This record gives sequence, C-alpha cells and structure tokens, in this order.
Amino acid sequence: MQLPSALLEQAVNEFSKLPGIGKKTALRLVLHLLKQEPEKVAAFGEALMRMRTETHICQRCYNLSDSLLCSICSNPMRKQEIICVVESIRDVIAIESTQQYSGTYHVLGGIISPLDGVGPDQLYIEPLLKRVQEGSVQELIFALNPTIQGDTTIYYIQKKLSPATVKVTTIARGIAFGGELEYADEMTLARSLQHRMPVENLKV
Amino acid sequence: MQLPSALLEQAVNEFSKLPGIGKKTALRLVLHLLKQEPEKVAAFGEALMRMRTETHICQRCYNLSDSLLCSICSNPMRKQEIICVVESIRDVIAIESTQQYSGTYHVLGGIISPLDGVGPDQLYIEPLLKRVQEGSVQELIFALNPTIQGDTTIYYIQKKLSPATVKVTTIARGIAFGGELEYADEMTLARSLQHRMPVENLKV
Repeated sequence: MQLPSALLEQAVNEFSKLPGIGKKTALRLVLHLLKQEPEKVAAFGEALMRMRTETHICQRCYNLSDSLLCSICSNPMRKQEIICVVESIRDVIAIESTQQYSGTYHVLGGIISPLDGVGPDQLYIEPLLKRVQEGSVQELIFALNPTIQGDTTIYYIQKKLSPATVKVTTIARGIAFGGELEYADEMTLARSLQHRMPVENLKV
Repeated sequence: MQLPSALLEQAVNEFSKLPGIGKKTALRLVLHLLKQEPEKVAAFGEALMRMRTETHICQRCYNLSDSLLCSICSNPMRKQEIICVVESIRDVIAIESTQQYSGTYHVLGGIISPLDGVGPDQLYIEPLLKRVQEGSVQELIFALNPTIQGDTTIYYIQKKLSPATVKVTTIARGIAFGGELEYADEMTLARSLQHRMPVENLKV
C-alpha cells in the first residue's frame, strides 16, 4: 500500500500496531480522523496520553486508578474483609458490571504459566499474602479462568496461605446460563454433575 | 460497563467513536496501550495530531500531501497530461498500489448524489474544468465506482467539458478477475457481453 503522505503513513503504522487492526482497517480509521475537526483529533490523542501517564495502579489491590488508592479500595461501603482475586483489570470490570459484588479485589497481573515464562514472582502474589497476614481478611474468592494455569495459581496461593485461617473459595463452575448440555465439554459436564447443587439455589 | 478510572473511560469513549469500534473493542485497545511504554503511547497520540494538523490537500489535484503540491503532481516522471478522476484519497491509494499508472490524479472529494445532498458545487469539479481549460490535458480517465451516482457524475462533468477537446475514458467494467459468471449481476454480465474485447487484450 503506497500512501501519498509520510504523516498519514506514520499514523496508519501506529494504528496497525494495535491488536486485531491491520493496515486496511488502520487506513480507514485514519481517513475517518482526517475528516474530523483538528480539536477532536487532538482530544483523542491527549486522552490516550493522559490515560497512559496519569493513571495509577492502586497500591492496595493493583487495580487501575486515577489516584493512589482505587475507588473500590477507598470506598467505605465495600467490604474490605472479602477479597476477590482476579487475573487482570478486565476481570474487575467484568465483575463490577454484574453489580452483585460488594467486596474488594486483588489483581494478580497474570496467572502462573511456566510455558509462557510466568512464575509466581512476576505476579502480585506476595502483596496478596501480606494483605491476608494483616489479619482482617475473612474470605478470598478466586475468580480466575477455569484452566490448568488458573487452578495451578489457586493451588499455589492456597499452599502459601496455609498457616493463615482464611476462607478460600472459587467462583462456581458449570454449564453457563443459556448454554446447551450437548455442546458442553466432558470436563465441565462431569464437574457440574459432581458439584450439583440444591434446586432452591436457583432462586435469584 | 463500569470502568475503574475516569481517564480510562475517556480513552475508551474516544476509541469507540471510530467507525466499526464498539465499547468492548475500544477497551481491549486501550488496555493494550496501557501496557506499552508511555513514550510509545505519546508517539501514537502525536502521530495522529500531526497527521491531522500538518497534512495538506494538494492545491492541484486535492490529494493528501505533506506539502502544498503532492508527491505525484510534483513528480516530473508522472504524465501531467493524463488525469485520473477519482472520488476519494482512498481510490488514489488503491490505484497507486497497482503500480500501473503513470499519470496524475484529480480527487473530486465525493460524487454527485442528490439523495445524500451532494451536488456538483460541493465537489472539486470546477478546479478540474480549469485544469482542462488550461490546455495541456489530453485525457481524463474516470475511475469512479460503477454506480448510478458515479455515472451521473461522469455525465455531468463530460457535459461541462463539451467545448474542450479532451479524450474522456472510464476504467473497464466487467467480470472481476477470479469472479464467477454465475454470481455476476445481470447488469454487469450484459455490459460485459456488450463491451466484449479481443482475446489478444488478455495478454499482460
């Protein structure tokens, strides 16, 4: 693709570095921006830069934040004694969207995955253990993806916790609402039989 | 979707204004940028702003350019006496990518489409007529999309040109290379029969 302007080419190149965006899509986006008012494009660029330089990582839970302590950790209405352990900020957003959880979070920043070269030391596991050791934590809810790596991470952290007396749970696994038994994998189906629950629990 | 940071939300909102990018994709792109070095994000933002403020529209052909005259118009190797008339910058890029055209361009900035409220006055038709009247132009090649609006635009410009003696052509229409007759629409198939060409022309 030969572009008529070096500046245009540079903008297209920058866009096509983003995941899932190829050269053609990048060009379409850039030509769209070219039609906008310069102030709007400046606002776009500045929003990206500010987002990168002015957001913080919460010192307690490693969630994204506009201040040193995130809006969840600093909210007195959230139960500080319940911690939901997640892999990434994306999971916090997903759980917050359910509007069903009133505890706090701890973002690990990944999961243990030796094949990808990710060991416990690269994750925020140590700070989580410290939060538990401080004593006020009553329950850790693991909300990790149900994979081998997720389960390994849960197992590793649980072992490290062993002297502490804290309740450790994981989010329920089973057939998704609206899912079809026929298409569920054996592992999921077997586990959901094994962990069957009283029908009364279905009440919302 | 509840986001943990106002700055993050602003960046997501800006991204989701782009065509074909929804909130979820925007979040994915923003979280990707969040993992990059601040300098890289700054380079991205600045490339967009510079592209919008520092690019010019070529004074002769209305193509995008880094200077007052675009790289094609100012190239002495390009035949100034042949002008390919296109709808948008995107078409210039498409034709340039074939590396088969050595003339110059004229970008109309759209096509005549009364239903969309686009009349001849909103397009760069007057400057095209001026370029032809200046006398050195020998051929106008219309490379517009083969639609009613495209044909109307060709017809309108041709009528305006009538006193001038300039050759007017349009790009060939027919069955696309690799296309299947079976799935071609009647109009295309009928026209491609009507404008059949000697087999010798197939030689590249």
